[in-house]
Amino acid sequence: MKILITSGGTREAIDRVRSITNHSTGQLGKVIAESFLKADHHVTLVTTKSALKPDDHPNLTIIEISNGASLQEALEPLVKSHDVLIHSMAVSDYTPVYMAGIDEVAQADSVYDLLEKRNDQGKISSADDYQVLFLKKTPKIISLVKEWNPAIGLIGFKLLVGVSKDELLAVARASLEKNQADYIVANDLLDIKEGQHRAYLVSKNEHIQVETKDQIAQLILQVVTEQKEA
Amino acid sequence: MKILITSGGTREAIDRVRSITNHSTGQLGKVIAESFLKADHHVTLVTTKSALKPDDHPNLTIIEISNGASLQEALEPLVKSHDVLIHSMAVSDYTPVYMAGIDEVAQADSVYDLLEKRNDQGKISSADDYQVLFLKKTPKIISLVKEWNPAIGLIGFKLLVGVSKDELLAVARASLEKNQADYIVANDLLDIKEGQHRAYLVSKNEHIQVETKDQIAQLILQVVTEQKEA
Repeated sequence: MKILITSGGTREAIDRVRSITNHSTGQLGKVIAESFLKADHHVTLVTTKSALKPDDHPNLTIIEISNGASLQEALEPLVKSHDVLIHSMAVSDYTPVYMAGIDEVAQADSVYDLLEKRNDQGKISSADDYQVLFLKKTPKIISLVKEWNPAIGLIGFKLLVGVSKDELLAVARASLEKNQADYIVANDLLDIKEGQHRAYLVSKNEHIQVETKDQIAQLILQVVTEQKEA
Repeated sequence: MKILITSGGTREAIDRVRSITNHSTGQLGKVIAESFLKADHHVTLVTTKSALKPDDHPNLTIIEISNGASLQEALEPLVKSHDVLIHSMAVSDYTPVYMAGIDEVAQADSVYDLLEKRNDQGKISSADDYQVLFLKKTPKIISLVKEWNPAIGLIGFKLLVGVSKDELLAVARASLEKNQADYIVANDLLDIKEGQHRAYLVSKNEHIQVETKDQIAQLILQVVTEQKEA
């Protein structure tokens, strides 16, 4: 099968010297990619420059992107040409649109007007004691996947921080339905430590709990293989 | 001599999953550290997890920090115990204090009130179409160096983007005076490319232009050695 995997975290530029970065080492995507390569599948890994990556392999193609816009541009044709997408990348929900000093914000007739403004320097000045950064929601790429290719198998990820298991599963199920995903891997940052990575593979009617990155990868390999054989 | 070098870029957390990151590969700090090691000096390199680093060396100590606060905490005792500080790290000028949806900002009696608020969740909600991030200026660590150790040699860095040479030199001279630095390495991001890194070593009365990272490192080594021998 042709497996498309995303990993790492995107960064959205504030100016030429600063970005908003979503943390992700890329380790989980690396382990998942290695599991599919070992099982003789072809893997395309869309990731970032700083993410951990598998060693070279004849069936592995690596494509590097930086921000949400470049991710979307790279993914659309790939989604159309692959059998399964495993979307483990941490994608920024928001991208910067304008940065101003607090006084400019206080003096604006309406803060909504500032959403239309743009900075024009390469490096935004650092004269003010307080700065205000306006951010705009980015398109949810996962919601476009089944529009691009209704036949693709889709495994999404949901990371929350410090919530109950019930809440985590409920949020994962909502994402499953909204994005027409086949599975959502739900995890809580507080349950990810050295040597441990608790996660729930959530489908419409059940969830399976695992405790390590290797187990997550093996479980995904298993359900993808079963689904495509069925 | 005991040489203290900083390199890489700091990150300031927005929440548990996102940060504002200052871009820096750490390559220049690495080259400078290697030049001093080769000339038999002792080097302490304060850097970040993701920065490029020299290979292990008996005279090299590496200390990793993440944000401005941890940098300041690490540097104070080191500045007191070293002969020279070469401060090439890209340190964030601002750190996040509060993030809110645009509607909350529009409805506030005064935007200044929002500077007192704090987010309490691990991952800030992504429900709003627009978010507003309030940032506070961080202490300029370079301005504290000569207070901590008046005898230390201090070489600062100033990076601007797309300015004239005159403006770059003027800003560097202002930093030189304000921070009681011995030299400022002034550079423009647009003059840094693969194989090229134009910079000006600015002192009170002159500036010397160089074109590569190796030349920057050699020039710093030369002026530090001359100054300490004088």
